Amino acid sequence: MKKFFLERVCLIFATWLLILTAHAETNDPLPSWNAGPIKQSIIQFVQTITDKNNPDYVPPADRIATFDNDGTLWLEQPMYTEVIFAFDRIKSLAPQHPEWKSKEPYQAILHNQYSHLTAQAIGKILTITQSGMSIDDFKEIEKNWLATTKNLRYHHYYTELVYQPMLEVMNYLRQHGFKVYIVSGGGQEFIRTYSQNVYDVPPEQVIGSADKINYVYHHHQPQLMNVPAVLFISNYQGKPEAINLFIGKKPIIAFGNSDGDRQMLEWTQSGSGKRLMLLVHHDDAVREYAYDTQSKVGTFSKSLMDEAKQNHWQIISMKNDWKVIFPFEKNKA
Amino acid sequence: MKKFFLERVCLIFATWLLILTAHAETNDPLPSWNAGPIKQSIIQFVQTITDKNNPDYVPPADRIATFDNDGTLWLEQPMYTEVIFAFDRIKSLAPQHPEWKSKEPYQAILHNQYSHLTAQAIGKILTITQSGMSIDDFKEIEKNWLATTKNLRYHHYYTELVYQPMLEVMNYLRQHGFKVYIVSGGGQEFIRTYSQNVYDVPPEQVIGSADKINYVYHHHQPQLMNVPAVLFISNYQGKPEAINLFIGKKPIIAFGNSDGDRQMLEWTQSGSGKRLMLLVHHDDAVREYAYDTQSKVGTFSKSLMDEAKQNHWQIISMKNDWKVIFPFEKNKA
Repeated sequence: MKKFFLERVCLIFATWLLILTAHAETNDPLPSWNAGPIKQSIIQFVQTITDKNNPDYVPPADRIATFDNDGTLWLEQPMYTEVIFAFDRIKSLAPQHPEWKSKEPYQAILHNQYSHLTAQAIGKILTITQSGMSIDDFKEIEKNWLATTKNLRYHHYYTELVYQPMLEVMNYLRQHGFKVYIVSGGGQEFIRTYSQNVYDVPPEQVIGSADKINYVYHHHQPQLMNVPAVLFISNYQGKPEAINLFIGKKPIIAFGNSDGDRQMLEWTQSGSGKRLMLLVHHDDAVREYAYDTQSKVGTFSKSLMDEAKQNHWQIISMKNDWKVIFPFEKNKA
Repeated sequence: MKKFFLERVCLIFATWLLILTAHAETNDPLPSWNAGPIKQSIIQFVQTITDKNNPDYVPPADRIATFDNDGTLWLEQPMYTEVIFAFDRIKSLAPQHPEWKSKEPYQAILHNQYSHLTAQAIGKILTITQSGMSIDDFKEIEKNWLATTKNLRYHHYYTELVYQPMLEVMNYLRQHGFKVYIVSGGGQEFIRTYSQNVYDVPPEQVIGSADKINYVYHHHQPQLMNVPAVLFISNYQGKPEAINLFIGKKPIIAFGNSDGDRQMLEWTQSGSGKRLMLLVHHDDAVREYAYDTQSKVGTFSKSLMDEAKQNHWQIISMKNDWKVIFPFEKNKA
C-alpha cells in the first residue's frame, strides 16, 4: 500500500514536470535558439514595437522584415544551390550541344572543374539555363530538380537544408503582424518556385535578381518567356533599390550574412524609431561551414564586420546561438 | 381619434419602409452601381469563388485583383493628372531655367500649348521633373501639389476625382480576402504617394512604370535618388510582365479602360477556373467625358472592343452602370 502511494506521488510529480516543460517550450517562440543576447534582442524588439503603449510602437502596415536567402535562410556552401542547379542543367542539356565539349565555360562544368570559373561566367550560365523558355516550363524543370537532387554532404534535398532557427524567426514575426520578405541576389523565379512551401513566403514577397521577360503568344495563348538579359540585380546597393521598387517602405528588421547585404542593413537602420539589423556568421565547421573573409561564396569581409560593430548590428554565431541548424536535426536536439 | 390612429399607422408604415430601405442599402456592397448585368456579374463572381462548396472556389492566397489607374480608378481627361503635375512643375521651375523660354517642349508647356506635344516629349518631361532628386523630396513636392491644386472643370482636388463605384468594388473585394493591386502605366512613385489614403492600397500593392533609382550617400546617410532613365514601362505587354515580376501569380479579376490594359485582361483570362475581366467605357459626356477610339488619352480602339466582345469581357457603361461618378456626388444621389 505504501509502495503504491509512493508510485502515485511519483507519477503525479512526473506528469507535472512534463506539463511544465511542455508549457515552457510552447511559450518559447524561438526554441532552436540558445538563450543569449541575440535571441533576447529579437524577442525584445518584437515585444517593444508591438506594444501600443510603447513610444516605439509600429503599426502593422509598417512591420516590414527583409531576409537575404543564400547563407541566411539556407545553405550556400560549397556553391549556391541555384548554381548547382544550373550546372546540372548544363550537364543534362550537353547531349544536345556536342560543341560544349570543347568550349568554355561548358567544358569546365562538364568536367566538374568549377574552381576557376569567374562570377561573370557563372552569371552567363545562370542566364542561359533559365532563358529561352516560358516561366512555367522553367518552374517545372526546377521543381523536378529540387524533388530529385540531394546534397552530397548531408544526403538531404536542398529544400531541407534551410535553417530551422530562421524559420522560427520568420514565423514569430508573421505571428506579430510582420510582412516577411525575402530579398536575395539570387534569381527571383528560382526562389519563388519553393518559397511558399519551404518558408511560407508567397511569391509576391520574394524579391530577387530578375531577367527580362517577354509577353508573347504561343498558339494564340499568351505566355511569358524568359529573355537572356538582366533587368536588375538585387545585391549590394541593388537590395535597397529593389526594396523601394517592390515595397516602397523601409524595413524595420533585416537579416543578412554577407557583403551583399550591407546596404540593406544600412537602409534599414537609416529609418527613424527602433530598428534591428542582424548578420549570420558561419563559424560552425562541424555542423555546417566556417567561412567569412576568404570565401568567394558569401564573403563576410572585415570591413563589413567593422561596420556591423560600429553600428551595433547583431552578429549571430551559428555555432553558439543555434541549438540546431536544419529542421531534420530537431529530434536529435 | 380616428385621425390620430391613421397618423400612427402611417408613421409606423413610413418607419418600416425607412428601415427596409436602409437595410437594403447596407446589404448592397456596391450602392453606387445601378442594378444590371455588370453589377450582378461582379457580385456573383465573388460569391462563387469564395464559396468553399463551389468547384470554382479560390483560396485567399490566389485572390488577386488588378486595377488600371488612369481612367479606371480616377479621371484621365483632358490630360493624365501626372502630366498636369509635370507641366505645373516645369512652370514653377521656369524662373531658374531662362533658356526654356525658347526651347521645345518647354516653350509650348509654358504657353499652355499642349496639343502638339508628342508622347515622347511628354515622357521626357515626366522623367526630367521626377529625377535628379531623392524619392523623399519628390514625394514632398507631389504631396504639396496634390494638396493645393484643383481641377479646372470640377473645382475639386485631383484625389477627389476618383470613381466612387470603383472604390466600392475594391473595398468589396478586400472584404472577401482579395489582395487588390494597382497596375498602371503611370509612374509608380507618383501613385504610391496617395494610394494608401485615397484607395486604401498600400505602396507594396502599387505597380507602375518605374525609372531607375540609385542608392547613394548624402552626408554619410543613405538615400535613394531618381535617375533620368526608364527601368520598365508597365503598359500594354508591360502589364502582364510587371504582374509576373511583382506578384508572380495570375490575377483572377482585372479592370481596365483602354488599349494599354488589353494584355492584362488577356493574361487574366488565360488562367484556369473562373475569371472576370472588365473595361470601363467612358460614355458619359454630361457627368464626365465621352471618348474611345479617337482620344489620344485613354484610347479605347475598335479592335479592343472587338476582342472584348469575342472574349466576353464586360463593358462598363459609365453613363448607365454608375449612379454617381465621384465620392462628392454621393449626397446628391
